[in-house]
Amino acid sequence: MSRIAFVNGAYLPHASSMVHIEDRGYQFADGVYEVFAVIDNKLVDYDAHINRLMRSLSELKIKLPYSRRSIFFHISNTIKQNLISNGLIYLQITRGVASRDFKFPNSVKSSLVIIGKNIPLNQYEDLFKTGINVSTTKDLRWKRVDIKSLNLLAPVLAKQLAHDKDSEESWLIDDDNFITEGSSSNAWIYLNGQLITRPVSNSILNGITRSTLISGLKKRNIKFKEAKFTLNDVKNSDEAFITSATQHVMPVVKVNDVKIGKGIPGPKALDFRSAYMESLKLTEI
Amino acid sequence: MSRIAFVNGAYLPHASSMVHIEDRGYQFADGVYEVFAVIDNKLVDYDAHINRLMRSLSELKIKLPYSRRSIFFHISNTIKQNLISNGLIYLQITRGVASRDFKFPNSVKSSLVIIGKNIPLNQYEDLFKTGINVSTTKDLRWKRVDIKSLNLLAPVLAKQLAHDKDSEESWLIDDDNFITEGSSSNAWIYLNGQLITRPVSNSILNGITRSTLISGLKKRNIKFKEAKFTLNDVKNSDEAFITSATQHVMPVVKVNDVKIGKGIPGPKALDFRSAYMESLKLTEI
Repeated sequence: MSRIAFVNGAYLPHASSMVHIEDRGYQFADGVYEVFAVIDNKLVDYDAHINRLMRSLSELKIKLPYSRRSIFFHISNTIKQNLISNGLIYLQITRGVASRDFKFPNSVKSSLVIIGKNIPLNQYEDLFKTGINVSTTKDLRWKRVDIKSLNLLAPVLAKQLAHDKDSEESWLIDDDNFITEGSSSNAWIYLNGQLITRPVSNSILNGITRSTLISGLKKRNIKFKEAKFTLNDVKNSDEAFITSATQHVMPVVKVNDVKIGKGIPGPKALDFRSAYMESLKLTEI
Repeated sequence: MSRIAFVNGAYLPHASSMVHIEDRGYQFADGVYEVFAVIDNKLVDYDAHINRLMRSLSELKIKLPYSRRSIFFHISNTIKQNLISNGLIYLQITRGVASRDFKFPNSVKSSLVIIGKNIPLNQYEDLFKTGINVSTTKDLRWKRVDIKSLNLLAPVLAKQLAHDKDSEESWLIDDDNFITEGSSSNAWIYLNGQLITRPVSNSILNGITRSTLISGLKKRNIKFKEAKFTLNDVKNSDEAFITSATQHVMPVVKVNDVKIGKGIPGPKALDFRSAYMESLKLTEI
Protein backbone atom coordinates (compact mmCIF):
# COMPACT_ATOMS: atom_id res chain seq x y z
CA MET A 1 0.00 0.00 0.00
CA SER A 2 1.40 3.40 -0.89
CA ARG A 3 1.37 6.21 1.64
CA ILE A 4 -1.22 8.96 1.36
CA ALA A 5 -0.76 12.57 2.46
CA PHE A 6 -3.29 15.36 2.90
CA VAL A 7 -2.19 18.52 1.06
CA ASN A 8 -4.37 21.62 0.95
CA GLY A 9 -7.65 19.80 0.53
CA ALA A 10 -6.57 16.73 -1.44
CA TYR A 11 -5.48 13.21 -0.50
CA LEU A 12 -2.45 12.42 -2.66
CA PRO A 13 0.15 9.68 -2.95
CA HIS A 14 2.94 10.70 -0.57
CA ALA A 15 5.57 10.44 -3.31
CA SER A 16 3.84 13.05 -5.46
CA SER A 17 2.63 15.38 -2.69
CA MET A 18 3.87 18.85 -3.52
CA VAL A 19 3.62 22.46 -2.40
CA HIS A 20 4.39 25.64 -4.32
CA ILE A 21 7.98 26.95 -4.42
CA GLU A 22 6.73 30.26 -3.01
CA ASP A 23 4.95 28.70 -0.06
CA ARG A 24 6.22 30.80 2.84
CA GLY A 25 7.07 27.65 4.71
CA TYR A 26 9.67 26.96 2.03
CA GLN A 27 11.16 30.45 1.80
CA PHE A 28 10.84 31.82 5.34
CA ALA A 29 10.10 28.96 7.79
CA ASP A 30 6.86 30.90 8.22
CA GLY A 31 4.69 28.20 9.72
CA VAL A 32 4.02 25.88 12.63
CA TYR A 33 3.64 22.16 13.21
CA GLU A 34 2.55 19.47 15.63
CA VAL A 35 3.45 15.79 15.99
CA PHE A 36 0.64 13.61 17.36
CA ALA A 37 1.46 10.12 18.62
CA VAL A 38 -0.91 7.30 17.67
CA ILE A 39 -1.21 4.37 20.06
CA ASP A 40 -3.52 1.45 19.25
CA ASN A 41 -5.35 3.48 16.60
CA LYS A 42 -5.98 6.33 19.03
CA LEU A 43 -4.58 9.86 19.18
CA VAL A 44 -2.56 10.75 22.29
CA ASP A 45 -3.39 14.01 24.12
CA TYR A 46 -5.13 15.35 21.03
CA ASP A 47 -6.76 18.36 22.67
CA ALA A 48 -3.52 19.52 24.26
CA HIS A 49 -1.70 19.32 20.91
CA ILE A 50 -4.46 21.18 19.08
CA ASN A 51 -4.57 23.86 21.76
CA ARG A 52 -0.81 24.35 21.45
CA LEU A 53 -1.18 24.52 17.65
CA MET A 54 -3.80 27.24 18.08
CA ARG A 55 -1.46 29.18 20.35
CA SER A 56 1.47 28.88 17.90
CA LEU A 57 -0.76 30.09 15.05
CA SER A 58 -2.05 32.95 17.15
CA GLU A 59 1.47 34.10 18.16
CA LEU A 60 2.39 34.28 14.45
CA LYS A 61 -1.01 35.64 13.34
CA ILE A 62 -1.52 32.73 10.94
CA LYS A 63 -5.12 31.68 10.39
CA LEU A 64 -6.33 28.11 10.78
CA PRO A 65 -7.14 27.15 7.16
CA TYR A 66 -9.94 24.72 8.11
CA SER A 67 -12.26 24.39 11.08
CA ARG A 68 -10.99 22.42 14.08
CA ARG A 69 -13.65 19.84 13.27
CA SER A 70 -12.34 19.46 9.68
CA ILE A 71 -8.78 19.19 10.91
CA PHE A 72 -9.74 16.37 13.27
CA PHE A 73 -11.55 14.67 10.40
CA HIS A 74 -8.52 14.89 8.09
CA ILE A 75 -6.13 13.70 10.79
CA SER A 76 -8.40 10.70 11.47
CA ASN A 77 -8.69 10.04 7.77
CA THR A 78 -4.91 10.17 7.29
CA ILE A 79 -4.51 7.62 10.10
CA LYS A 80 -7.09 5.34 8.49
CA GLN A 81 -5.86 5.70 4.92
CA ASN A 82 -2.31 4.85 6.00
CA LEU A 83 -3.46 1.98 8.29
CA ILE A 84 -1.56 3.42 11.24
CA SER A 85 -2.02 1.45 14.46
CA ASN A 86 1.08 2.85 16.13
CA GLY A 87 3.02 5.78 14.81
CA LEU A 88 2.56 9.47 14.36
CA ILE A 89 0.78 12.22 12.52
CA TYR A 90 2.85 15.21 11.41
CA LEU A 91 0.74 18.29 10.73
CA GLN A 92 2.14 21.52 9.31
CA ILE A 93 0.43 24.86 8.67
CA THR A 94 2.22 27.68 6.85
CA ARG A 95 1.13 31.24 6.11
CA GLY A 96 0.47 30.30 2.48
CA VAL A 97 1.76 31.06 -1.01
CA ALA A 98 2.72 34.60 -2.00
CA SER A 99 5.31 36.46 -4.05
CA ARG A 100 8.43 36.57 -1.86
CA ASP A 101 8.38 39.47 0.61
CA PHE A 102 9.31 39.30 4.29
CA LYS A 103 6.16 41.02 5.52
CA PHE A 104 2.88 39.11 5.76
CA PRO A 105 0.96 38.85 2.47
CA ASN A 106 -2.61 40.12 2.32
CA SER A 107 -5.56 37.73 2.19
CA VAL A 108 -3.71 34.54 1.37
CA LYS A 109 -5.00 31.13 2.43
CA SER A 110 -2.71 29.27 4.80
CA SER A 111 -1.40 25.85 3.72
CA LEU A 112 -2.10 22.56 5.51
CA VAL A 113 -0.12 19.34 5.12
CA ILE A 114 -0.81 16.15 7.10
CA ILE A 115 1.54 13.16 6.92
CA GLY A 116 1.11 9.82 8.67
CA LYS A 117 3.84 7.40 9.58
CA ASN A 118 3.80 3.89 11.01
CA ILE A 119 6.34 3.23 13.77
CA PRO A 120 6.70 -0.32 15.09
CA LEU A 121 5.86 -0.43 18.81
CA ASN A 122 9.13 -2.16 19.67
CA GLN A 123 11.32 0.55 18.13
CA TYR A 124 11.30 2.80 21.18
CA GLU A 125 10.74 -0.13 23.57
CA ASP A 126 14.19 -1.49 22.70
CA LEU A 127 15.68 1.98 23.17
CA PHE A 128 13.90 2.29 26.54
CA LYS A 129 15.71 -0.82 27.77
CA THR A 130 19.17 0.45 26.84
CA GLY A 131 18.58 4.16 27.38
CA ILE A 132 20.06 6.84 25.15
CA ASN A 133 23.23 8.94 25.06
CA VAL A 134 23.03 12.72 25.07
CA SER A 135 25.61 15.29 23.94
CA THR A 136 25.52 18.93 24.93
CA THR A 137 25.97 21.91 22.66
CA LYS A 138 25.35 25.66 22.70
CA ASP A 139 21.72 26.70 22.28
CA LEU A 140 21.82 28.66 19.01
CA ARG A 141 18.06 28.88 18.53
CA TRP A 142 15.95 32.00 18.14
CA LYS A 143 14.28 33.57 21.16
CA ARG A 144 10.72 32.33 20.59
CA VAL A 145 11.12 28.55 20.79
CA ASP A 146 7.91 28.50 22.84
CA ILE A 147 6.25 28.74 19.40
CA LYS A 148 6.37 25.32 17.70
CA SER A 149 7.51 26.83 14.39
CA LEU A 150 9.42 25.64 11.34
CA ASN A 151 12.40 27.82 12.31
CA LEU A 152 14.29 24.60 13.05
CA LEU A 153 17.75 24.93 11.56
CA ALA A 154 19.49 25.20 14.95
CA PRO A 155 17.83 22.01 16.29
CA VAL A 156 18.74 20.26 13.00
CA LEU A 157 22.42 21.16 13.50
CA ALA A 158 22.26 20.17 17.17
CA LYS A 159 20.71 16.78 16.36
CA GLN A 160 23.31 16.10 13.68
CA LEU A 161 26.06 17.02 16.15
CA ALA A 162 24.58 14.50 18.58
CA HIS A 163 24.53 11.88 15.83
CA ASP A 164 28.19 12.62 14.97
CA LYS A 165 29.03 11.91 18.60
CA ASP A 166 27.09 8.61 18.70
CA SER A 167 24.31 10.18 20.74
CA GLU A 168 20.57 10.14 20.17
CA GLU A 169 19.88 13.67 21.41
CA SER A 170 21.54 17.04 22.06
CA TRP A 171 20.86 19.04 25.20
CA LEU A 172 21.16 22.74 24.54
CA ILE A 173 23.04 25.07 26.89
CA ASP A 174 22.02 28.72 27.20
CA ASP A 175 24.27 31.78 27.70
CA ASP A 176 24.03 31.38 31.48
CA ASN A 177 25.18 27.74 31.33
CA PHE A 178 21.78 26.26 32.09
CA ILE A 179 20.33 23.48 29.97
CA THR A 180 17.22 24.63 28.12
CA GLU A 181 15.95 21.37 26.60
CA GLY A 182 16.76 18.77 23.93
CA SER A 183 16.77 19.58 20.21
CA SER A 184 13.37 17.85 19.91
CA SER A 185 12.50 16.87 23.48
CA ASN A 186 12.32 18.21 27.03
CA ALA A 187 15.16 17.42 29.47
CA TRP A 188 14.79 15.98 32.99
CA ILE A 189 17.09 14.94 35.80
CA TYR A 190 16.43 12.95 38.96
CA LEU A 191 18.62 14.58 41.59
CA ASN A 192 18.49 14.32 45.41
CA GLY A 193 15.26 12.36 45.31
CA GLN A 194 13.29 14.64 43.06
CA LEU A 195 12.57 14.92 39.38
CA ILE A 196 13.55 18.30 37.90
CA THR A 197 12.74 19.98 34.59
CA ARG A 198 13.13 23.57 33.42
CA PRO A 199 10.11 25.86 33.95
CA VAL A 200 8.16 27.00 30.90
CA SER A 201 9.25 30.31 29.30
CA ASN A 202 10.15 31.60 25.83
CA SER A 203 13.34 29.50 26.11
CA ILE A 204 11.72 26.07 25.89
CA LEU A 205 8.80 24.44 24.16
CA ASN A 206 5.90 23.72 26.49
CA GLY A 207 5.98 19.97 25.82
CA ILE A 208 2.68 18.10 25.90
CA THR A 209 4.40 14.93 27.12
CA ARG A 210 6.14 17.11 29.72
CA SER A 211 2.76 18.43 30.97
CA THR A 212 1.14 15.00 31.01
CA LEU A 213 4.08 13.53 32.92
CA ILE A 214 3.81 16.35 35.48
CA SER A 215 0.13 15.51 36.10
CA GLY A 216 1.11 11.86 36.45
CA LEU A 217 3.84 12.69 38.96
CA LYS A 218 1.35 14.68 41.05
CA LYS A 219 -1.13 11.78 41.08
CA ARG A 220 1.60 9.42 42.27
CA ASN A 221 2.99 11.95 44.78
CA ILE A 222 6.40 11.74 43.18
CA LYS A 223 8.63 14.62 44.33
CA PHE A 224 9.03 17.08 41.49
CA LYS A 225 10.11 20.65 40.90
CA GLU A 226 10.47 23.02 37.97
CA ALA A 227 13.95 24.56 38.09
CA LYS A 228 16.84 25.40 35.81
CA PHE A 229 19.77 23.00 36.00
CA THR A 230 23.35 22.95 34.73
CA LEU A 231 25.54 20.28 33.16
CA ASN A 232 27.13 19.89 36.57
CA ASP A 233 23.72 19.06 38.08
CA VAL A 234 23.27 16.49 35.30
CA LYS A 235 26.57 14.83 36.18
CA ASN A 236 25.48 14.54 39.82
CA SER A 237 22.09 13.08 38.93
CA ASP A 238 20.99 9.55 39.74
CA GLU A 239 18.92 9.32 36.58
CA ALA A 240 18.04 11.47 33.60
CA PHE A 241 15.28 11.46 30.95
CA ILE A 242 13.92 13.06 27.86
CA THR A 243 10.24 13.38 27.04
CA SER A 244 8.69 13.76 23.60
CA ALA A 245 5.45 12.87 21.83
CA THR A 246 7.02 9.89 20.05
CA GLN A 247 9.50 8.65 22.67
CA HIS A 248 7.30 9.29 25.73
CA VAL A 249 9.66 9.02 28.74
CA MET A 250 13.10 7.83 27.64
CA PRO A 251 16.01 7.18 30.04
CA VAL A 252 19.32 8.97 29.40
CA VAL A 253 22.30 6.85 30.45
CA LYS A 254 25.22 9.00 29.35
CA VAL A 255 25.73 12.74 28.89
CA ASN A 256 28.87 13.60 26.91
CA ASP A 257 31.34 11.14 28.38
CA VAL A 258 29.77 10.91 31.82
CA LYS A 259 27.64 7.94 32.84
CA ILE A 260 24.38 8.82 34.59
CA GLY A 261 23.98 6.57 37.64
CA LYS A 262 25.28 3.14 36.61
CA GLY A 263 25.13 3.93 32.88
CA ILE A 264 21.96 1.90 32.47
CA PRO A 265 18.31 2.92 32.92
CA GLY A 266 17.75 3.41 36.67
CA PRO A 267 15.08 2.07 39.03
CA LYS A 268 12.81 5.10 38.58
CA ALA A 269 12.54 4.89 34.77
CA LEU A 270 9.60 2.47 34.75
CA ASP A 271 7.81 4.46 37.49
CA PHE A 272 8.08 7.73 35.61
CA ARG A 273 7.02 6.20 32.35
CA SER A 274 4.02 4.59 34.04
CA ALA A 275 3.13 7.96 35.60
CA TYR A 276 3.04 9.32 32.04
CA MET A 277 1.21 6.39 30.44
CA GLU A 278 -1.58 6.38 33.02
CA SER A 279 -2.15 10.13 32.63
CA LEU A 280 -2.24 10.53 28.85
CA LYS A 281 -5.64 10.93 27.23
CA LEU A 282 -6.58 8.81 24.22
CA THR A 283 -8.99 10.06 21.57
CA GLU A 284 -10.86 7.63 19.30
CA ILE A 285 -10.51 8.50 15.63
CA MET B 1 4.18 36.08 -21.00
CA SER B 2 3.97 33.75 -18.03
CA ARG B 3 6.83 33.55 -15.56
CA ILE B 4 9.20 30.59 -15.66
CA ALA B 5 11.02 29.07 -12.69
CA PHE B 6 13.88 26.58 -12.55
CA VAL B 7 13.08 23.70 -10.18
CA ASN B 8 15.44 20.77 -9.75
CA GLY B 9 16.45 20.51 -13.38
CA ALA B 10 13.28 21.65 -15.12
CA TYR B 11 11.99 24.99 -16.40
CA LEU B 12 8.37 25.22 -15.33
CA PRO B 13 5.58 27.78 -15.35
CA HIS B 14 5.97 29.70 -12.10
CA ALA B 15 2.34 29.06 -11.12
CA SER B 16 2.80 25.28 -11.19
CA SER B 17 6.36 25.09 -9.81
CA MET B 18 6.30 22.72 -6.87
CA VAL B 19 8.58 20.96 -4.39
CA HIS B 20 7.92 17.88 -2.28
CA ILE B 21 6.16 18.26 1.08
CA GLU B 22 9.13 16.53 2.74
CA ASP B 23 11.73 18.83 1.22
CA ARG B 24 13.80 19.81 4.26
CA GLY B 25 13.45 23.43 3.28
CA TYR B 26 9.74 23.09 3.98
CA GLN B 27 9.95 21.17 7.25
CA PHE B 28 13.16 22.46 8.86
CA ALA B 29 14.31 25.68 7.12
CA ASP B 30 17.26 23.49 6.20
CA GLY B 31 18.65 25.46 3.29
CA VAL B 32 20.26 28.66 2.08
CA TYR B 33 19.54 31.37 -0.48
CA GLU B 34 20.92 34.35 -2.37
CA VAL B 35 19.29 37.33 -4.03
CA PHE B 36 21.15 38.63 -7.09
CA ALA B 37 20.28 42.07 -8.44
CA VAL B 38 19.99 42.44 -12.23
CA ILE B 39 20.80 45.85 -13.73
CA ASP B 40 20.55 46.41 -17.50
CA ASN B 41 20.53 42.66 -18.15
CA LYS B 42 23.68 42.12 -16.09
CA LEU B 43 24.22 40.39 -12.76
CA VAL B 44 25.52 42.57 -9.91
CA ASP B 45 28.52 41.30 -7.90
CA TYR B 46 27.87 37.76 -9.07
CA ASP B 47 31.12 36.22 -7.84
CA ALA B 48 30.72 37.70 -4.36
CA HIS B 49 27.17 36.31 -4.08
CA ILE B 50 28.21 32.86 -5.31
CA ASN B 51 31.17 32.81 -2.92
CA ARG B 52 28.87 33.66 -0.02
CA LEU B 53 26.46 30.94 -1.18
CA MET B 54 29.33 28.44 -1.15
CA ARG B 55 30.24 29.52 2.38
CA SER B 56 26.63 29.18 3.60
CA LEU B 57 26.40 25.68 2.09
CA SER B 58 29.71 24.71 3.58
CA GLU B 59 28.73 25.88 7.09
CA LEU B 60 25.62 23.67 6.89
CA LYS B 61 27.36 20.82 5.07
CA ILE B 62 24.89 20.98 2.18
CA LYS B 63 26.28 19.99 -1.21
CA LEU B 64 25.97 22.18 -4.29
CA PRO B 65 23.53 20.14 -6.45
CA TYR B 66 25.02 21.34 -9.78
CA SER B 67 28.41 22.64 -10.85
CA ARG B 68 29.06 26.38 -10.43
CA ARG B 69 29.13 26.59 -14.22
CA SER B 70 25.66 24.98 -14.50
CA ILE B 71 24.28 27.27 -11.84
CA PHE B 72 25.50 30.32 -13.72
CA PHE B 73 23.92 28.91 -16.88
CA HIS B 74 20.54 28.36 -15.19
CA ILE B 75 20.58 31.80 -13.56
CA SER B 76 21.34 33.40 -16.95
CA ASN B 77 18.64 31.32 -18.57
CA THR B 78 16.08 32.30 -15.93
CA ILE B 79 16.88 35.98 -16.56
CA LYS B 80 16.46 35.49 -20.31
CA GLN B 81 13.32 33.37 -20.13
CA ASN B 82 11.63 35.95 -17.90
CA LEU B 83 12.90 38.90 -19.98
CA ILE B 84 14.39 40.58 -16.92
CA SER B 85 16.24 43.82 -17.68
CA ASN B 86 16.07 45.13 -14.15
CA GLY B 87 15.03 43.04 -11.20
CA LEU B 88 16.34 40.14 -9.23
CA ILE B 89 17.13 36.45 -9.17
CA TYR B 90 16.18 34.50 -6.05
CA LEU B 91 18.10 31.24 -5.70
CA GLN B 92 17.43 28.68 -2.99
CA ILE B 93 19.23 25.42 -2.18
CA THR B 94 17.89 23.02 0.45
CA ARG B 95 19.32 19.78 1.81
CA GLY B 96 16.79 17.79 -0.25
CA VAL B 97 13.83 15.48 0.24
CA ALA B 98 13.85 12.84 2.99
CA SER B 99 11.52 11.22 5.50
CA ARG B 100 11.23 13.74 8.35
CA ASP B 101 14.08 13.41 10.86
CA PHE B 102 16.09 16.26 12.39
CA LYS B 103 19.47 14.75 11.61
CA PHE B 104 20.91 14.97 8.09
CA PRO B 105 19.64 12.31 5.68
CA ASN B 106 22.13 10.04 3.94
CA SER B 107 22.93 10.46 0.26
CA VAL B 108 20.08 12.73 -0.72
CA LYS B 109 20.38 15.21 -3.60
CA SER B 110 19.99 18.84 -2.55
CA SER B 111 17.18 20.86 -4.15
CA LEU B 112 17.65 23.96 -6.31
CA VAL B 113 15.01 26.56 -7.11
CA ILE B 114 15.67 29.72 -9.17
CA ILE B 115 13.03 32.44 -9.51
CA GLY B 116 13.32 35.64 -11.54
CA LYS B 117 11.43 38.85 -10.94
CA ASN B 118 11.17 42.10 -12.89
CA ILE B 119 11.38 45.26 -10.78
CA PRO B 120 10.82 48.62 -12.49
CA LEU B 121 13.92 50.80 -12.17
CA ASN B 122 11.92 53.72 -10.76
CA GLN B 123 10.52 51.72 -7.82
CA TYR B 124 13.51 52.22 -5.56
CA GLU B 125 14.47 55.53 -7.22
CA ASP B 126 11.28 57.13 -5.91
CA LEU B 127 12.00 55.69 -2.46
CA PHE B 128 15.57 57.02 -2.62
CA LYS B 129 14.21 60.55 -3.04
CA THR B 130 11.94 60.39 0.00
CA GLY B 131 14.03 58.06 2.14
CA ILE B 132 12.54 55.36 4.35
CA ASN B 133 11.33 55.08 7.94
CA VAL B 134 12.84 52.49 10.28
CA SER B 135 11.44 50.99 13.49
CA THR B 136 13.53 49.20 16.06
CA THR B 137 12.73 45.90 17.73
CA LYS B 138 14.50 43.21 19.74
CA ASP B 139 16.77 40.93 17.73
CA LEU B 140 15.10 37.52 18.21
CA ARG B 141 17.11 35.68 15.55
CA TRP B 142 19.23 32.58 15.99
CA LYS B 143 22.97 32.89 16.63
CA ARG B 144 24.24 32.07 13.13
CA VAL B 145 22.77 34.83 11.01
CA ASP B 146 26.14 35.01 9.23
CA ILE B 147 24.77 31.99 7.31
CA LYS B 148 22.24 33.21 4.72
CA SER B 149 19.76 30.46 5.64
CA LEU B 150 16.01 29.96 5.42
CA ASN B 151 15.69 30.23 9.21
CA LEU B 152 13.91 33.56 8.65
CA LEU B 153 10.90 33.63 10.93
CA ALA B 154 12.36 36.30 13.23
CA PRO B 155 13.14 38.68 10.31
CA VAL B 156 9.61 38.03 8.97
CA LEU B 157 8.09 39.10 12.29
CA ALA B 158 10.43 42.10 12.51
CA LYS B 159 9.55 43.25 8.97
CA GLN B 160 5.84 42.91 9.68
CA LEU B 161 6.27 44.93 12.87
CA ALA B 162 7.96 47.66 10.82
CA HIS B 163 5.08 47.56 8.36
CA ASP B 164 2.55 47.84 11.21
CA LYS B 165 4.36 51.01 12.29
CA ASP B 166 4.38 52.55 8.79
CA SER B 167 8.08 51.83 8.37
CA GLU B 168 9.91 50.10 5.55
CA GLU B 169 12.48 48.30 7.70
CA SER B 170 13.19 47.12 11.25
CA TRP B 171 16.56 47.60 12.90
CA LEU B 172 17.26 44.82 15.35
CA ILE B 173 18.65 45.49 18.82
CA ASP B 174 20.83 42.90 20.56
CA ASP B 175 20.96 42.01 24.30
CA ASP B 176 23.65 44.66 24.87
CA ASN B 177 21.51 47.39 23.27
CA PHE B 178 23.56 47.63 20.08
CA ILE B 179 21.89 47.57 16.69
CA THR B 180 22.87 44.47 14.73
CA GLU B 181 21.35 45.16 11.28
CA GLY B 182 18.02 45.43 9.48
CA SER B 183 15.67 42.47 9.02
CA SER B 184 16.88 42.17 5.40
CA SER B 185 19.58 44.85 5.07
CA ASN B 186 22.69 46.20 6.78
CA ALA B 187 22.42 49.36 8.91
CA TRP B 188 24.63 52.46 8.65
CA ILE B 189 24.86 55.85 10.34
CA TYR B 190 26.78 58.99 9.41
CA LEU B 191 27.93 60.43 12.72
CA ASN B 192 30.62 63.06 13.47
CA GLY B 193 31.79 63.10 9.87
CA GLN B 194 32.19 59.38 9.37
CA LEU B 195 30.10 56.53 8.07
CA ILE B 196 29.70 53.68 10.57
CA THR B 197 28.47 50.12 10.23
CA ARG B 198 28.72 47.12 12.53
CA PRO B 199 31.74 44.83 12.02
CA VAL B 200 31.16 41.37 10.57
CA SER B 201 30.60 38.53 13.09
CA ASN B 202 28.06 35.74 13.66
CA SER B 203 25.57 38.49 14.63
CA ILE B 204 25.12 40.02 11.19
CA LEU B 205 25.07 38.90 7.58
CA ASN B 206 28.19 39.85 5.67
CA GLY B 207 26.30 41.92 3.09
CA ILE B 208 27.65 41.99 -0.46
CA THR B 209 26.31 45.52 -0.98
CA ARG B 210 27.92 46.42 2.36
CA SER B 211 31.34 45.13 1.17
CA THR B 212 31.06 46.81 -2.21
CA LEU B 213 30.12 50.12 -0.59
CA ILE B 214 33.13 49.81 1.74
CA SER B 215 35.49 49.42 -1.25
CA GLY B 216 33.80 52.43 -2.85
CA LEU B 217 34.25 54.52 0.30
CA LYS B 218 37.95 53.66 0.38
CA LYS B 219 38.40 54.67 -3.26
CA ARG B 220 36.77 58.02 -2.55
CA ASN B 221 38.64 58.52 0.75
CA ILE B 222 35.36 58.86 2.62
CA LYS B 223 35.90 58.53 6.38
CA PHE B 224 34.53 55.19 7.52
CA LYS B 225 34.75 52.82 10.47
CA GLU B 226 33.34 49.47 11.49
CA ALA B 227 31.89 49.81 14.99
CA LYS B 228 28.84 48.80 16.99
CA PHE B 229 26.34 51.60 17.56
CA THR B 230 23.27 52.13 19.73
CA LEU B 231 19.85 53.66 19.14
CA ASN B 232 21.19 56.74 20.90
CA ASP B 233 24.00 57.04 18.33
CA VAL B 234 21.36 56.76 15.61
CA LYS B 235 19.40 59.63 17.11
CA ASN B 236 22.53 61.81 17.10
CA SER B 237 23.40 60.94 13.50
CA ASP B 238 23.33 63.43 10.63
CA GLU B 239 22.25 60.76 8.16
CA ALA B 240 21.45 57.05 8.16
CA PHE B 241 21.21 54.33 5.51
CA ILE B 242 20.42 50.74 4.76
CA THR B 243 22.18 48.64 2.15
CA SER B 244 20.81 45.57 0.39
CA ALA B 245 21.17 43.82 -2.97
CA THR B 246 17.88 45.20 -4.27
CA GLN B 247 17.79 48.65 -2.61
CA HIS B 248 21.54 49.41 -2.96
CA VAL B 249 22.14 52.42 -0.65
CA MET B 250 18.84 53.75 0.70
CA PRO B 251 18.58 56.83 3.00
CA VAL B 252 16.79 56.44 6.33
CA VAL B 253 14.96 59.63 7.34
CA LYS B 254 13.21 58.57 10.54
CA VAL B 255 13.95 55.97 13.22
CA ASN B 256 10.99 55.25 15.47
CA ASP B 257 9.62 58.75 16.04
CA VAL B 258 12.93 60.56 15.67
CA LYS B 259 13.84 62.41 12.47
CA ILE B 260 17.38 61.80 11.20
CA GLY B 261 18.94 65.13 10.23
CA LYS B 262 16.20 67.22 8.68
CA GLY B 263 13.93 64.20 8.10
CA ILE B 264 14.77 64.10 4.41
CA PRO B 265 17.68 62.38 2.59
CA GLY B 266 20.85 64.29 3.53
CA PRO B 267 23.65 65.74 1.39
CA LYS B 268 25.79 62.59 1.62
CA ALA B 269 23.18 60.17 0.27
CA LEU B 270 24.05 60.67 -3.40
CA ASP B 271 27.80 60.48 -2.67
CA PHE B 272 27.50 57.20 -0.83
CA ARG B 273 25.26 55.67 -3.44
CA SER B 274 27.68 56.73 -6.17
CA ALA B 275 30.55 55.20 -4.20
CA TYR B 276 28.58 51.94 -4.30
CA MET B 277 27.48 52.17 -7.94
CA GLU B 278 30.98 52.82 -9.25
CA SER B 279 32.42 49.87 -7.29
CA LEU B 280 29.93 47.12 -8.10
CA LYS B 281 30.95 44.55 -10.67
CA LEU B 282 28.62 43.65 -13.52
CA THR B 283 28.62 40.21 -15.12
CA GLU B 284 27.25 39.65 -18.62
CA ILE B 285 24.76 36.82 -18.79
